[in-house]
Amino acid sequence: MHGFYKLSEFSALNTMTTQQLTEQIRIKNSFLCIGLDVDLDKIPKHLLATEDPIFEFNKAIIDATHDLAVAYKPNTAFYEAYGIKGWQSLQKTIQYLNQNYPELFTIADAKRGDIGNTSGMYAKAFFEDLNFDSVTVAPYMGKDSVEPFLAFEDKHTIMLALTSNEGAFDFQTLGVDGIELYKQVIATSRNWNNAVNLMYVVGATKAEYFAEIRKIIPDSFLLVPGIGAQGGSLSEVCQYGLNDQVGLLVNSSRGIIYASDSIDFAEKARDAALLVQQEMKAILQK
Amino acid sequence: MHGFYKLSEFSALNTMTTQQLTEQIRIKNSFLCIGLDVDLDKIPKHLLATEDPIFEFNKAIIDATHDLAVAYKPNTAFYEAYGIKGWQSLQKTIQYLNQNYPELFTIADAKRGDIGNTSGMYAKAFFEDLNFDSVTVAPYMGKDSVEPFLAFEDKHTIMLALTSNEGAFDFQTLGVDGIELYKQVIATSRNWNNAVNLMYVVGATKAEYFAEIRKIIPDSFLLVPGIGAQGGSLSEVCQYGLNDQVGLLVNSSRGIIYASDSIDFAEKARDAALLVQQEMKAILQK
Repeated sequence: MHGFYKLSEFSALNTMTTQQLTEQIRIKNSFLCIGLDVDLDKIPKHLLATEDPIFEFNKAIIDATHDLAVAYKPNTAFYEAYGIKGWQSLQKTIQYLNQNYPELFTIADAKRGDIGNTSGMYAKAFFEDLNFDSVTVAPYMGKDSVEPFLAFEDKHTIMLALTSNEGAFDFQTLGVDGIELYKQVIATSRNWNNAVNLMYVVGATKAEYFAEIRKIIPDSFLLVPGIGAQGGSLSEVCQYGLNDQVGLLVNSSRGIIYASDSIDFAEKARDAALLVQQEMKAILQK
Repeated sequence: MHGFYKLSEFSALNTMTTQQLTEQIRIKNSFLCIGLDVDLDKIPKHLLATEDPIFEFNKAIIDATHDLAVAYKPNTAFYEAYGIKGWQSLQKTIQYLNQNYPELFTIADAKRGDIGNTSGMYAKAFFEDLNFDSVTVAPYMGKDSVEPFLAFEDKHTIMLALTSNEGAFDFQTLGVDGIELYKQVIATSRNWNNAVNLMYVVGATKAEYFAEIRKIIPDSFLLVPGIGAQGGSLSEVCQYGLNDQVGLLVNSSRGIIYASDSIDFAEKARDAALLVQQEMKAILQK
């Protein structure tokens, strides 16, 4: 399963450039991101007897799917909910990814944001202490809440633009001087220091939005939740969202990692990931 | 120093009601919240030799100031920056507060927010695992990102409205259908389930905003950063922000906890807190 991509280009401490990410997408024919949202109530019961069920689950999922996906995205909420043990599982998971699969792009889905010096501490937590390639951030507090993340020039900062949940329509799509807030957020962020390191979260719930967004940011990578469990369509998102560098990371969490809750969970997760990867391959080769 | 407020009303697991919070404010003549934003580069050097310098620092600060403040607010960024050790310090700090000073209101300044089931995991982390009385949340993702916090009926959810940083003017003050976004955020949130458990973060940088905000939420508690280091004026904020239940928690972090970086740091923190408390007392007794 190994060997068909060039491992030698990466080291455990090296963060991927977007060029390398695109290269991995071309090699694997996949722009799949697997969301590691691990809930102890949903994982196979036999894992609960192990010392660190969350890590054992992640390890098995990663080992079974790493050649079909280009990115992995633990959501910090699921780890914090288990306190110090959860934080340890998160740490072991990112270490495992960095040591064994340095060609994978890693995302801390943390949605952080605070005043400048405080955002700097979050950046330190996720980029230095945990050594993720990227972290998701919230835009509400503006420029000085995001720039401390962007200051890490070899890392990537993924800002919420248009999310995939129902609440996205509470504020994100409101008209601000005639433009929807999420577009204003994207456009304004282009003027921030090191904006070249920004990617954006854009939910898959309405594919037409991608056409509008691509007018503002033709070149940026978009992290796309909301395919599968949340109802978005992969082909429609790609129709409007793909660019010359692919420019999309499409996330699936529950549809893949909880494909089975039995002893065969990793195998079934691979089957589910393969289905998505095959669909992506067909789209990329069109 | 103990004894002049009724400890018997509280238990270590009991969360305070806003009525009890107001009562504590009246008893102590203080609506001071002390921000525990602990940076190892700024605390007294002699503490670095202890097993848990962050907790030792917090313990000393809390012991020295608990009768002058009604609330303590660790910002999670400062703890996450130190990984598992930091999370342990946070856990020990909230346990220490709950066990020794149950009459104090505790705030996890976490600024979280995610899709519904994920926000539910954050709520579990801060309300159940750590047992804070309240947590700060970000509004960008709307109703279903905040309601899982509000579902904890005996807890309080403090939503960002108008923050105290420069970036507040990037999006929060933009006009949405003729109303500033932060007002829209506040007004919309009043329709959410259990909205009665909402408090709001309102920065002290422009005191006149408080008059506008009080028209929308006359009764809600406001958590006010930005006094002191960030330049806001206590008397101006009170002029527009106080209500019949007081309705304000004014935060100070650096101005109090870093009053000295020597062996006398706790004593000097008390002196700094006393100055603020005396100013608050004068305002409350006007």
